Amino acid sequence: MAVTTEGVVSSRTGPGDWLTSVNRVCLEHASGFVAERCDEQFRGRGEGSLAIEALPEFVGGGKFLRPAFAYAGWCCGRPEDDAAVRAATSLELLHCFALAQDDVMDRSALRRGRPALHTRFARWHRDQGWSGSATRFGESAAVLFGDLFLVWSEQMLRESGLPGTTLARGWPHYDAMRAELAAGQLADLVNDARTLPSWDAVLDVIRRKSGNYTVRRPLEFGAALAGCDARVLRTLGEYGGLVGEAFQFRDDLLGVFGDPDLTGKPVSQDLRDRKASSVVVLAVAMADAAQRQELQILLDEENLDDDAVAGLRATIAATGAPDQLEKLIDRRVRKAVELLDDAGVPARMLETLAVLAARCTDRVL
Amino acid sequence: MAVTTEGVVSSRTGPGDWLTSVNRVCLEHASGFVAERCDEQFRGRGEGSLAIEALPEFVGGGKFLRPAFAYAGWCCGRPEDDAAVRAATSLELLHCFALAQDDVMDRSALRRGRPALHTRFARWHRDQGWSGSATRFGESAAVLFGDLFLVWSEQMLRESGLPGTTLARGWPHYDAMRAELAAGQLADLVNDARTLPSWDAVLDVIRRKSGNYTVRRPLEFGAALAGCDARVLRTLGEYGGLVGEAFQFRDDLLGVFGDPDLTGKPVSQDLRDRKASSVVVLAVAMADAAQRQELQILLDEENLDDDAVAGLRATIAATGAPDQLEKLIDRRVRKAVELLDDAGVPARMLETLAVLAARCTDRVL
Repeated sequence: MAVTTEGVVSSRTGPGDWLTSVNRVCLEHASGFVAERCDEQFRGRGEGSLAIEALPEFVGGGKFLRPAFAYAGWCCGRPEDDAAVRAATSLELLHCFALAQDDVMDRSALRRGRPALHTRFARWHRDQGWSGSATRFGESAAVLFGDLFLVWSEQMLRESGLPGTTLARGWPHYDAMRAELAAGQLADLVNDARTLPSWDAVLDVIRRKSGNYTVRRPLEFGAALAGCDARVLRTLGEYGGLVGEAFQFRDDLLGVFGDPDLTGKPVSQDLRDRKASSVVVLAVAMADAAQRQELQILLDEENLDDDAVAGLRATIAATGAPDQLEKLIDRRVRKAVELLDDAGVPARMLETLAVLAARCTDRVL
Repeated sequence: MAVTTEGVVSSRTGPGDWLTSVNRVCLEHASGFVAERCDEQFRGRGEGSLAIEALPEFVGGGKFLRPAFAYAGWCCGRPEDDAAVRAATSLELLHCFALAQDDVMDRSALRRGRPALHTRFARWHRDQGWSGSATRFGESAAVLFGDLFLVWSEQMLRESGLPGTTLARGWPHYDAMRAELAAGQLADLVNDARTLPSWDAVLDVIRRKSGNYTVRRPLEFGAALAGCDARVLRTLGEYGGLVGEAFQFRDDLLGVFGDPDLTGKPVSQDLRDRKASSVVVLAVAMADAAQRQELQILLDEENLDDDAVAGLRATIAATGAPDQLEKLIDRRVRKAVELLDDAGVPARMLETLAVLAARCTDRVL
């Protein structure tokens, strides 16, 4: 790295260590910012005491992938800068907003191997012995804390310390990301495995909801803030589109075949939720007649018990869809990294972006 | 009015007509902005087609009280300005966010005499013949559209056309308002009539949730944008605190005794929701021993049927609490208007603020 800023990273480290340092600094900024906001808002208030404990902890449990891509984007155009790290970190709070509310909508009880926010707040309501529905309270509280994360993200970006003219280049990307995120979640709500969408429709949801929002938009946002030229922006956008899809394919594979100890979610949660994810839709497309019938019967079942889930998993594996998805992941990551050559991306960022692409599509992510 | 801006209002009208014109212009700005955003986000998408129809309509059904207070605040320090009208209008989108999500949390099926957003989306899901729970879909969709309103509000303010230095004076107030709104709704979730809070606790929720957010904060926000001096800001804050409380007292009275045709809500909805509103808490405080026992029995009932609700209503009336609240409303409005004299508020705004105070605490609001 050409330039270092106090509190960011050392120039003598390789891209892996550099990313680890960026991650650490982002985590400090995010937890600190949220702890301050919680203190302002909830100190001394009974119903807020759990927020003071739970929200900074929730933030701290993240992988900070989106800030990493955003800051990498920044570093494609400008020297390292602590204000830019804070601006990039604001995307993690946007992610916290999405997680808090998605878990309510999907009724996911677990997040990162621990009770989801709404589960924690429901339990807390019960422990207080309050009247009314604890489940309902937990869900409403998680939605409200999601709202606060959404507000805090924008506030953190605005107060990052970047000058107004620099921020002005980022706002259109930031706004598009926020709106796309909510609209993508809406599309996801109607994406149900019992009415199987086409492969193209699945790719569309992936691009809009997860892929764009995890990789492409953060990268473009950071690069736009840094004032990168059109050629670099376009290349990063293409790289981001490919890596984002690969990221979601990996996520979908883990949602069916992942080790619960690593995913922090119950085994095959996506099947239980009847998500029409890429691996399910691809399995149906690749299935022979007998396999297809079996998949359809299982997907149509009123209650998916453990046996039905195991049956679905085995049939999906037998279609060859998981192996095919591995190939698609590999191909996209390789193509993405190749795109960066000779496209005006600074040499020092090439290896970093290759490491990031590998990390976010890794089998044990 | 000293200065007029094209698209705002004529200088020859009285404060009532002026407020009506401001209302009309705010409505045009808000509906137009939301229609454009919906078009960007949802045009050509199946699940978005109802949003394109429902969201601008939802915005258009509002009373635009908060923009009126914000713009009145602006006019205490600066001449009329169409960019300031747009900035003020952003508060109506913030209000739409709150309404969309509050109705989900309170399970209110009606809003302004029409199906609430989540009810409409649930019905739509059913009409499409989609699989999965229509109720659940409706609630999730309404939360997501609430999120979009929250995002759009901030975007509308940022893109209002006011210079960055002007906006910078408003952001702290805007941020405080947004955070207070979510934190206030959280406090409201634990505010249940079966565990009656104290009068002070009720006033605290009123100040934080409705009073501050409807009157005081919008007024301070507008005045801060306009660069009003500390004395004017302080006076407007005090006026806003008093009028805001009176507004909520009126709202609480309507929530128990209001005519459904005027409130757009079922009769005594607040009693059915067991809201520990000001009128309920005051009734318990003013009740004699027999009345208190009666109130407690009814509040503790498992299911509040129409007879129980009618009984509660009659007992509350018999305690004298409604008359007492009328007096409190009247006293607060009168005191608020008196405060404005000789406090540096421009003469031309005195009558306007008096009319606004009366309008937002009116019996048939």
